[in-house]
Amino acid sequence: MKNTFGSNISITLFGESHGEMIGCVLDGFPAGLPFDEEYISRRMDLRRPVPGISTTRSEPDPVHCVSGVYRGFTCGTPICLLIPNTQADSRHYENLPARPGHADLTAHIKYHGFEDPRGGGHFSGRLTAPLTAAGAFALSILKRKGIRIGTHILRLGVMEDRPFRDPVQDINALDETVFPVLDAETAEKMKQIIQKAAAEKDSIGGMLESCVTGLPGGIGEPWFDSLEGMLSHALFSVPAVKGVEFGDGFRFAGLRGSECIDALRVKEGRVITESNHNGGINGGISNGMPLLLRCAVKPTPSIFITQNTVDLKTGRETPLSLTGRHDPAIVHRARPAVDSMIALTLCDQLAARFGSEWFREEE
Amino acid sequence: MKNTFGSNISITLFGESHGEMIGCVLDGFPAGLPFDEEYISRRMDLRRPVPGISTTRSEPDPVHCVSGVYRGFTCGTPICLLIPNTQADSRHYENLPARPGHADLTAHIKYHGFEDPRGGGHFSGRLTAPLTAAGAFALSILKRKGIRIGTHILRLGVMEDRPFRDPVQDINALDETVFPVLDAETAEKMKQIIQKAAAEKDSIGGMLESCVTGLPGGIGEPWFDSLEGMLSHALFSVPAVKGVEFGDGFRFAGLRGSECIDALRVKEGRVITESNHNGGINGGISNGMPLLLRCAVKPTPSIFITQNTVDLKTGRETPLSLTGRHDPAIVHRARPAVDSMIALTLCDQLAARFGSEWFREEE
Amino acid sequence: MKNTFGSNISITLFGESHGEMIGCVLDGFPAGLPFDEEYISRRMDLRRPVPGISTTRSEPDPVHCVSGVYRGFTCGTPICLLIPNTQADSRHYENLPARPGHADLTAHIKYHGFEDPRGGGHFSGRLTAPLTAAGAFALSILKRKGIRIGTHILRLGVMEDRPFRDPVQDINALDETVFPVLDAETAEKMKQIIQKAAAEKDSIGGMLESCVTGLPGGIGEPWFDSLEGMLSHALFSVPAVKGVEFGDGFRFAGLRGSECIDALRVKEGRVITESNHNGGINGGISNGMPLLLRCAVKPTPSIFITQNTVDLKTGRETPLSLTGRHDPAIVHRARPAVDSMIALTLCDQLAARFGSEWFREEE
Amino acid sequence: MKNTFGSNISITLFGESHGEMIGCVLDGFPAGLPFDEEYISRRMDLRRPVPGISTTRSEPDPVHCVSGVYRGFTCGTPICLLIPNTQADSRHYENLPARPGHADLTAHIKYHGFEDPRGGGHFSGRLTAPLTAAGAFALSILKRKGIRIGTHILRLGVMEDRPFRDPVQDINALDETVFPVLDAETAEKMKQIIQKAAAEKDSIGGMLESCVTGLPGGIGEPWFDSLEGMLSHALFSVPAVKGVEFGDGFRFAGLRGSECIDALRVKEGRVITESNHNGGINGGISNGMPLLLRCAVKPTPSIFITQNTVDLKTGRETPLSLTGRHDPAIVHRARPAVDSMIALTLCDQLAARFGSEWFREEE
Repeated sequence: MKNTFGSNISITLFGESHGEMIGCVLDGFPAGLPFDEEYISRRMDLRRPVPGISTTRSEPDPVHCVSGVYRGFTCGTPICLLIPNTQADSRHYENLPARPGHADLTAHIKYHGFEDPRGGGHFSGRLTAPLTAAGAFALSILKRKGIRIGTHILRLGVMEDRPFRDPVQDINALDETVFPVLDAETAEKMKQIIQKAAAEKDSIGGMLESCVTGLPGGIGEPWFDSLEGMLSHALFSVPAVKGVEFGDGFRFAGLRGSECIDALRVKEGRVITESNHNGGINGGISNGMPLLLRCAVKPTPSIFITQNTVDLKTGRETPLSLTGRHDPAIVHRARPAVDSMIALTLCDQLAARFGSEWFREEE
Repeated sequence: MKNTFGSNISITLFGESHGEMIGCVLDGFPAGLPFDEEYISRRMDLRRPVPGISTTRSEPDPVHCVSGVYRGFTCGTPICLLIPNTQADSRHYENLPARPGHADLTAHIKYHGFEDPRGGGHFSGRLTAPLTAAGAFALSILKRKGIRIGTHILRLGVMEDRPFRDPVQDINALDETVFPVLDAETAEKMKQIIQKAAAEKDSIGGMLESCVTGLPGGIGEPWFDSLEGMLSHALFSVPAVKGVEFGDGFRFAGLRGSECIDALRVKEGRVITESNHNGGINGGISNGMPLLLRCAVKPTPSIFITQNTVDLKTGRETPLSLTGRHDPAIVHRARPAVDSMIALTLCDQLAARFGSEWFREEE
Repeated sequence: MKNTFGSNISITLFGESHGEMIGCVLDGFPAGLPFDEEYISRRMDLRRPVPGISTTRSEPDPVHCVSGVYRGFTCGTPICLLIPNTQADSRHYENLPARPGHADLTAHIKYHGFEDPRGGGHFSGRLTAPLTAAGAFALSILKRKGIRIGTHILRLGVMEDRPFRDPVQDINALDETVFPVLDAETAEKMKQIIQKAAAEKDSIGGMLESCVTGLPGGIGEPWFDSLEGMLSHALFSVPAVKGVEFGDGFRFAGLRGSECIDALRVKEGRVITESNHNGGINGGISNGMPLLLRCAVKPTPSIFITQNTVDLKTGRETPLSLTGRHDPAIVHRARPAVDSMIALTLCDQLAARFGSEWFREEE
Repeated sequence: MKNTFGSNISITLFGESHGEMIGCVLDGFPAGLPFDEEYISRRMDLRRPVPGISTTRSEPDPVHCVSGVYRGFTCGTPICLLIPNTQADSRHYENLPARPGHADLTAHIKYHGFEDPRGGGHFSGRLTAPLTAAGAFALSILKRKGIRIGTHILRLGVMEDRPFRDPVQDINALDETVFPVLDAETAEKMKQIIQKAAAEKDSIGGMLESCVTGLPGGIGEPWFDSLEGMLSHALFSVPAVKGVEFGDGFRFAGLRGSECIDALRVKEGRVITESNHNGGINGGISNGMPLLLRCAVKPTPSIFITQNTVDLKTGRETPLSLTGRHDPAIVHRARPAVDSMIALTLCDQLAARFGSEWFREEE
């Protein structure tokens, strides 16, 4: 389905970085849900550049809803969200050779040279703006059902944030923070690492950790449509994500069973796990514990250090010296997109089990 | 779509561990492809227990093709593969409380107690048998097109295998090996680690690394149906996989851009990358370099050490002492399923781009 | 998705007429539903040949359920139903030239001569056996929710049956009848028409009319997944169906608006339509009135009159004189398949709106 | 998938009649195809009101392409087409009771009163504008591959047009005609019938017949994704279509096999059928002959005769006297939507068989 994701709740994404506008169509939500423009606007702010450590391309990105909402509530019909591209500056992309590490080469192969090359075209991180907007709506609906999603920068260079402690409180705090780190001191040090990379014309990678609370057990399917499979499918959509793990993830590779089995207990009449090595998922299905997952975010390949590349028009090797506006780190800006993809995936899975009508009743 | 995966080339999986039979339906392959039963049979052998380090439940698992193949060639219609369950021994599962770390609790929540509890039912690793059979067919078709897939145990406990060197030669060697490790000495040490875990009534996790060669550039889609997204969706179907990463994966989190950008070069008239930090994928699309990906495989939670759990029928906490036949490590047995899911996913993506007819012409 | 139909509730069909077995996989039904083998068996009887007016190929067609059902209830996992082919007689199909009006030519083009030619292979009406079995299960589940489906032969040659009067009573009567005609006298005359056609080595077409009662309003989607669109998609799967219409259908072409608008009334606090020209559907969505639809069934092209055709192997024109066992009319045998496709489609749409869990609660 | 149709080539539709804009997203076409704005604009003219027999709401409907096209060629990424609603006049819809025969009641049930009621909201025939635009692009691409699609009004009241004779020539003529009737004299009489109905405050139904030439054999799938199933699914999306038939369609019900079997012949080395009772499709798959299908179009329920209805807000019966702008016949205005849905469906099926890349090579 290419640029459409989801079955019962789906999103269709379109647009190019320097085209007239970008946007998406959200389908499957029932009628009568509040469409909270202010909340969407606040989520959009979370992906705006952070002064001092981000690109200077800064767009207000007003989200324009042209269908599916009437008098503040969803109609049950497709919601089309449009975001104009007002700050596009295509000058730097004229006759640019392929930028290594970006999709320039692969787009050229796939599209035979007919791709829109300006600013990465359809592959631009700018397309996370409609993802963020759509996800913001999904987040607001899940919140009404008691399901909360939050993401922090777990690692950046050598710095590591503290883990989630009180998930709901932590998620509330992250909701208000443009640079999503749980420990304030660590946040400052991470920013310094970014500034240092920027000063050296370089960029830096990182790792995001997400937590979902309030998700009922029994969500997800065995085998192909496991919660891990669906979530990872969604998360690898976020540009620069190159790894996804659940619970102990890659740490499992060195562990003994006895070290990481989540013993079962009864607490207040409910079966819970003592530990959460499995990140809230067994056999592809939620077990009622918080979901825990991590995404590896590669350093953006847009660096100002000269790189070796190829001019795809001439087929000749050439050095590349980037100019223009580029982020030295994108891990914090990937955060709202990560939250969004989780939210959209969960909405889809919940609708499969309980029906789209389920979203109508507020908990 | 629950137990169906893929659009143009799809697989539908069914069966329970102790039911009468398990199987799958493969759909979308064109007519006229050779159906190589011998090759399928050899691939099935790769998931059989390895003497000394595996369960003693050992089934010959003859794959029975009841439709879609006529006189040795595909008809173009759905291929149904059936595998009888002959060695099922349900005694140990009578009145067993929920096994922690397995899907017992989540199946109970999702299916309200109506799940088939014998041997894990539909969640059993046994279902990787039809996956392996279907994948074997896909692998044989991809091989005709010059596309090869191989997987080795990269890590087990503290032991690490050497990386892929000459991919095609390495993949050929792995094809013949039940315990898929590239370095023979490392293989022996890994087996000892497994035996030690078994002797201590415990189990051990591991990490698989896969390589794909011969895949043309331009395969995969931007955003939702990225090659990473589709492959991870498929790979998390394999039981016990809890993490998937591409190229440098989680290592990216600590790297600078300058350390991991794959510079472009021209070699024999073709654009290649100097390094392969991105594992052959940029912007979700193959770039013509080998694909490189890794799966974290958690230690099987079926250990003989007594565990704390809950009897779901009574709702009471209870200790669990497993008896019966269990693998101390499943990483090597997950391997053919991993190869299979990669093969099926690539067939689907290739069919999307070139059409199902494309598979008819041998390279 | 080729041989898979449905999103939330799906069916995957496989098999060839003279292969070892045929069958299907039903996926998406929740756990805990009774699997009524006896009812399925009775529905299977409805597609068996009617003595005197049907082929002499008569198979008992026991439906063998190998997965997804445990101790008489669904497990929530895929239900695989298998039906062995025991009466296959391939002699008549050896070296048969293409049978005009059948799929022989199109299968040959599509599958490049690799199709299984015996008895029409995958295109055989025999594949309606697993459809009937799967649909029988769906019908039994819908009945628990108060939704009933029935189909009669509305027209055959010049004979026309009376319309539905008391739908539930009529549907009950049809459930017990192998030759589904509401008026007993008409039934006899229709049988005579069939016998006359048979005596003249010919075949005869017909029209089926279906009624659905108890379907809640609000089912179906605007535009592409309209109830009409989904149902017709499903119904054209039934071999020989060449037309589908809803309500007044093709009669609308000659009507004025004033003659066929269904005025709205209030009855017992509920909005109903005075007439039902629209067959219970407006804007693609059910309005709470009975669904009414009709399928045109073409006369089977298997007639004993000599026909002009082409031997696809030699490419030469040749006369064709059929021998073997063939139905002079298939309209009554198409009936259970029509009921089935309606039932499966409605289950899928109901699951989309109310979730798969909805089927668990008996009305 | 609700408002998305198609797998390999898909369309996502959005918008409400009196919202700010309506539109669609086309996905799956490869890069490098010419985007012929002038042709699209000409197709849009074909759905504009015909002076004298149509509503006076007449919008120029400029189609605004905001993504997926760069310098006149497709980029391979999603094509978003937007059409502003400039002539919306919501006055007549304030406090209007449910209009019988429209989707007002079903929308109210489905959306619980949260639907946008102005002008039928999402159910408005106005949404055929983006369908027409998207289909125009599909038609232009199919034409490059030698595949032509044309539709005429076969019947209106008692008047019947002549059948297709020389399909390509007829299709060329229809392309230039706003009132698509093959016989000029019949066209005039049909217009008079419409004018008469309008004069009597009434409306009139009709029947469209479509022909497709140049479609290769082997397109479509057995069973669920038959060409008939896919096309009918698409065609019932067009508002007011209540019946779809292929070849002899409902006429088959009264025919003998010997009257309607299409004998096979060899002509210029190619197997053809002597007659075309099956409308170019056998077993769900194209046989290389022209496709022939018909759609029943019900009379629009927007008539000026007073109707009985219910005020859904108060739940009380009330008469309805429409004012405003309404078409006395919509059969001719449904035509471009019918052509579009056929074109989009065939593109999807062709891409499944030959791959999306196939569209790049001009015949």
